[in-house]
Amino acid sequence: MRGFASDNYAPAHPAVLEAMARANTGQAAAYGYDEHTERATALIREEFGEDTEVRFVFNGTAANVLCLQTMVRPHQAVICATSSHVNMDECGAPERFLGSKLLDVPAPDGRLTPALVDVHARSFGDEHRVQPAAVTIAQTTEMGTVYSPEALRELADHVHGLGMRLHLDGSRLAYAAEALGCSMREASRDAGVDAVSLGGTKIGAVGAEAVLLFRPELTPDIAFMRKQSMQLASKMRYVAVQFEALLTDDVWRANARNGNRMAALLAELVGDVVEITQPVEANAVFARLPAAAVEPLQQRFAFHVWDDRTGEVRWMTAWDTTEQDVRDFAAAVSEVVGQTAAR
Amino acid sequence: MRGFASDNYAPAHPAVLEAMARANTGQAAAYGYDEHTERATALIREEFGEDTEVRFVFNGTAANVLCLQTMVRPHQAVICATSSHVNMDECGAPERFLGSKLLDVPAPDGRLTPALVDVHARSFGDEHRVQPAAVTIAQTTEMGTVYSPEALRELADHVHGLGMRLHLDGSRLAYAAEALGCSMREASRDAGVDAVSLGGTKIGAVGAEAVLLFRPELTPDIAFMRKQSMQLASKMRYVAVQFEALLTDDVWRANARNGNRMAALLAELVGDVVEITQPVEANAVFARLPAAAVEPLQQRFAFHVWDDRTGEVRWMTAWDTTEQDVRDFAAAVSEVVGQTAAR
Amino acid sequence: MRGFASDNYAPAHPAVLEAMARANTGQAAAYGYDEHTERATALIREEFGEDTEVRFVFNGTAANVLCLQTMVRPHQAVICATSSHVNMDECGAPERFLGSKLLDVPAPDGRLTPALVDVHARSFGDEHRVQPAAVTIAQTTEMGTVYSPEALRELADHVHGLGMRLHLDGSRLAYAAEALGCSMREASRDAGVDAVSLGGTKIGAVGAEAVLLFRPELTPDIAFMRKQSMQLASKMRYVAVQFEALLTDDVWRANARNGNRMAALLAELVGDVVEITQPVEANAVFARLPAAAVEPLQQRFAFHVWDDRTGEVRWMTAWDTTEQDVRDFAAAVSEVVGQTAAR
Amino acid sequence: MRGFASDNYAPAHPAVLEAMARANTGQAAAYGYDEHTERATALIREEFGEDTEVRFVFNGTAANVLCLQTMVRPHQAVICATSSHVNMDECGAPERFLGSKLLDVPAPDGRLTPALVDVHARSFGDEHRVQPAAVTIAQTTEMGTVYSPEALRELADHVHGLGMRLHLDGSRLAYAAEALGCSMREASRDAGVDAVSLGGTKIGAVGAEAVLLFRPELTPDIAFMRKQSMQLASKMRYVAVQFEALLTDDVWRANARNGNRMAALLAELVGDVVEITQPVEANAVFARLPAAAVEPLQQRFAFHVWDDRTGEVRWMTAWDTTEQDVRDFAAAVSEVVGQTAAR
Repeated sequence: MRGFASDNYAPAHPAVLEAMARANTGQAAAYGYDEHTERATALIREEFGEDTEVRFVFNGTAANVLCLQTMVRPHQAVICATSSHVNMDECGAPERFLGSKLLDVPAPDGRLTPALVDVHARSFGDEHRVQPAAVTIAQTTEMGTVYSPEALRELADHVHGLGMRLHLDGSRLAYAAEALGCSMREASRDAGVDAVSLGGTKIGAVGAEAVLLFRPELTPDIAFMRKQSMQLASKMRYVAVQFEALLTDDVWRANARNGNRMAALLAELVGDVVEITQPVEANAVFARLPAAAVEPLQQRFAFHVWDDRTGEVRWMTAWDTTEQDVRDFAAAVSEVVGQTAAR
Repeated sequence: MRGFASDNYAPAHPAVLEAMARANTGQAAAYGYDEHTERATALIREEFGEDTEVRFVFNGTAANVLCLQTMVRPHQAVICATSSHVNMDECGAPERFLGSKLLDVPAPDGRLTPALVDVHARSFGDEHRVQPAAVTIAQTTEMGTVYSPEALRELADHVHGLGMRLHLDGSRLAYAAEALGCSMREASRDAGVDAVSLGGTKIGAVGAEAVLLFRPELTPDIAFMRKQSMQLASKMRYVAVQFEALLTDDVWRANARNGNRMAALLAELVGDVVEITQPVEANAVFARLPAAAVEPLQQRFAFHVWDDRTGEVRWMTAWDTTEQDVRDFAAAVSEVVGQTAAR
Repeated sequence: MRGFASDNYAPAHPAVLEAMARANTGQAAAYGYDEHTERATALIREEFGEDTEVRFVFNGTAANVLCLQTMVRPHQAVICATSSHVNMDECGAPERFLGSKLLDVPAPDGRLTPALVDVHARSFGDEHRVQPAAVTIAQTTEMGTVYSPEALRELADHVHGLGMRLHLDGSRLAYAAEALGCSMREASRDAGVDAVSLGGTKIGAVGAEAVLLFRPELTPDIAFMRKQSMQLASKMRYVAVQFEALLTDDVWRANARNGNRMAALLAELVGDVVEITQPVEANAVFARLPAAAVEPLQQRFAFHVWDDRTGEVRWMTAWDTTEQDVRDFAAAVSEVVGQTAAR
Repeated sequence: MRGFASDNYAPAHPAVLEAMARANTGQAAAYGYDEHTERATALIREEFGEDTEVRFVFNGTAANVLCLQTMVRPHQAVICATSSHVNMDECGAPERFLGSKLLDVPAPDGRLTPALVDVHARSFGDEHRVQPAAVTIAQTTEMGTVYSPEALRELADHVHGLGMRLHLDGSRLAYAAEALGCSMREASRDAGVDAVSLGGTKIGAVGAEAVLLFRPELTPDIAFMRKQSMQLASKMRYVAVQFEALLTDDVWRANARNGNRMAALLAELVGDVVEITQPVEANAVFARLPAAAVEPLQQRFAFHVWDDRTGEVRWMTAWDTTEQDVRDFAAAVSEVVGQTAAR
């Protein structure tokens, strides 16, 4: 059954599996001392800057937690949007592994602003209070929205001005860069971000993410932190080569472009039938569906209810979403919502 | 360069990558709600028992920490061999994530015994002391030795008699079972083990391990623990299908057999030239090498110095080690050791 | 300089120091195996029930964290009011030591209700989400308000109906019981609370708090948890005897009565001059003060600004607050606010 | 019943309780912003150096964990003697709160040496291994022995040469300094120690310990670490004033002198009857007692069996031990051991 549940329901892009097969010859030093790790690292540095510290990990939760671990100690805190993945969907991994409090603030469209940061950027020096030391955002956000480089720069300057660090969860950074028509670097580092969780999985990998650190003072312990956080792959070549594949011939951008276009098309096709609740800026469509329409539609297409209190649902597109998928789904939405209304 | 550094220097078995390619079609529910996860789970249950709780994870360190997490709370302790992987080679992940102390005891050949367990199985009820609640062993051990089912049963009975749990690090359980001429179940669960870290990576996978729990009281929180420990793969099918491949047509056993045979051959070929320091029972050969011989030999074949204070080195074989590899290496050992002696 | 900063600015009640002096003879078994610990425990059990598990600790933060530790594991979460001490004023100790997320919800007068609990009592069984397992409240609340036994019972039933536990931070439970005209047991345990942090320090002790557990399933590990959490006093007699003193001849109630009366008097005297922002139900008065009045007033009397964004200040009374203190302060408030208005 | 169980069975020195009573007047700022904290801090700085960072805490376990927390991050390790308090008697608090591994090495008389440190000071830079970053010792040691300033200096230089820090558990530093005939500073800081857990409780306090840090790079987070570690007393004056009392008129030294003399006398009186197993250098006597003598003797005097496998027992003296206590006990030892031998 096809659907719009998540970009991680999609298979891996063929180029990724082909690269893994090509890497599957002979012996290779374990733990990242192999040529694929070297090449993938070089390609990421080409994209993000030669001085980028690159560490491959298994999944996005780990990339986030590790980036933050370079920035905060347990008595320090991380400011984030209430809706963010780190706050909602990582089963408390950040609190568990950082030992730190997350200070969350509602961000209606998923984007933090200087004013929203200021809600929690307080009590510096008061020993009774956790000390805000990092801000974490996502690009694209959990609500499918995208920070413009200007908004990002403004936020980064504010965060740095307060003596804090800025981390960017880039599990969908490819979609954001494509939406902005810029490089991934311009959509993150160049706007002042200090560390990025670079996603491969949602843009066509089998399972590959990377910790990118842009400041030398964040890097000294990262190798040990990765190992102690149970994120050091022994046969590293198979993780690294996935990034090699995605970063060769702009596979990542083509994949992102398809996802973004399909989301735009979906929003266009269903816009008259349902209320679109968030700006459609990348590969997500948030919409309000009549309660009675959810189940009949889910029987035909997979997707998630975002908030059962508001009736919001989330529809994700991916590199493999076809125009036919979208048209079939839009037709089904119209049909089912129509039937619901008729009752 | 070929060598004997580790069984994780070997590539993946072709059957594994072929299975991953076959799994790479269409969309599939994320996080383990796909048919490959279902099938791999079924195959593992066929091997280990229908009531086995199976959770796939990324690497062996995580499998160990998660198994132990089901057994101990922070004020409780884990008894282990000093040489064990959990004690030496996981960069403190167990202490970090369990919050617990490891109580290590030297075990000359890597195997724990009831008497060795008793060194630390003390102070029960004394609130100043950590409370031993689990014993962890490895099969094969870190020293390449194998527990007989009888030795395992004796140990398990002793451990259970003290009110503790027994965990088995089975990153090389396949090699042990093949060496014992029995099933993996007979080499672990049937002898009284409560939980197993089942290894795929060192027996031919790209990167796949599993937490196996055999007691219902260990299972209630495992799903949450896995997620919070940053070990939940989104595109789970690609992890699970690796076990599908290894457990089909006994690929795992053929792979183990080759590794074990090549280690035996190597020990036989170099036995007159160097001192073999551990019983060669599976796919590892430990030997003492003259200090001057190490570097010249490492320039031709990769391997690790085990203890630079004793001159011990470790030579691992794997599913891909060829007889030619072994004969070439044995010849080189003879040659280099001979030259060293001549000087 | 006298003031209204906190009930922990007050000295110890003379009866407490006299009791400590009386306990200071001869040798006594360490770590709680002494007669004062026995007697204090017996007195607390007389008050809260014979089956109460009693463990003395050093401070309120520790009592809270230890009570919660008996209720939650790291992947589980604790629901609390945003303004609560555990959320705001313990420098992240709960997250650090529990490894758990706190799920906070704004509670305008500091009191949680079933509806406020329901904001976070969701996502049960979803492995991506922390699992709410405990609710923590304070009696009196951080805003100086008091739960009626009926409100408490309704909340406890709701919490239990959802399969969670209810913890009560009773650092000021004495003030609440006196305000309600009931026993401390009626103001907590009898209304369905599962565990109480019993405060001594703010009601006249030098420094003494206790963990009280009312359910046998919460108790098995508490001795070890206390020691591992660095809260086991060696010369325990001097902690325990403080509770002996407070619980003898109802010293605690007399102390609470004075605090509550002085707060009521203060509210009465300044009610025409400043806006009282919270119901004055125990020993706290919250009021809004013109920004220009804060500093001049603080130069004469110590007190804390509660929220510099709203201009709210907090005035606490204690067992040692005198009517003269209150009248002097009220006069100063009138004077300074009057001068401010005149400008 | 009097005895030799521990120096924490002793009452507080009268000067301590008198000082607490004197401090019990009027209101005082909480959390250490009071004059007693100021004075006690000044007295400690007079003793240990004007630039000493001083933070009062509740007990010795906390002082140790906090000192170490300023020195290591979770992937780093702490080298210690197997017999040390941090390793054996803190119920895993260091592992729990540091998240770090302790690397313990048997030290027959409790003293670490450069060679013993080197057993674990290895694998620097290897990401699979915890990274030794601190060494912790005790003065006096857990076996009642004392480091000479020269031995300490040699150890400190070695530790620093390896890029590590040196922490000293000084719960009995007073006894060591008196035994050495030097100041507490000479017995710790002047010999190269970076941080000291300064004990008050075992030298006559009710319950008071302090974290002393001698290097500015260890200090920036200590206020927050103390609070987050649940060790910030609200009515701090009563903790601080205990040190005021002990450090005035050399009460600490007189107390230590008595303890040391009584231990020496005890060793002299029983030396012909039992085997003394450790050098008697301060206030502890370790001896081997016939198994059958233990219980009859414990019925008359409290003391602890140190190792039931070797028959070793520990007899501690304190500031309140009298010559009569020692003579009575020595007579009882002779009598009971004689009876045992006669059987």
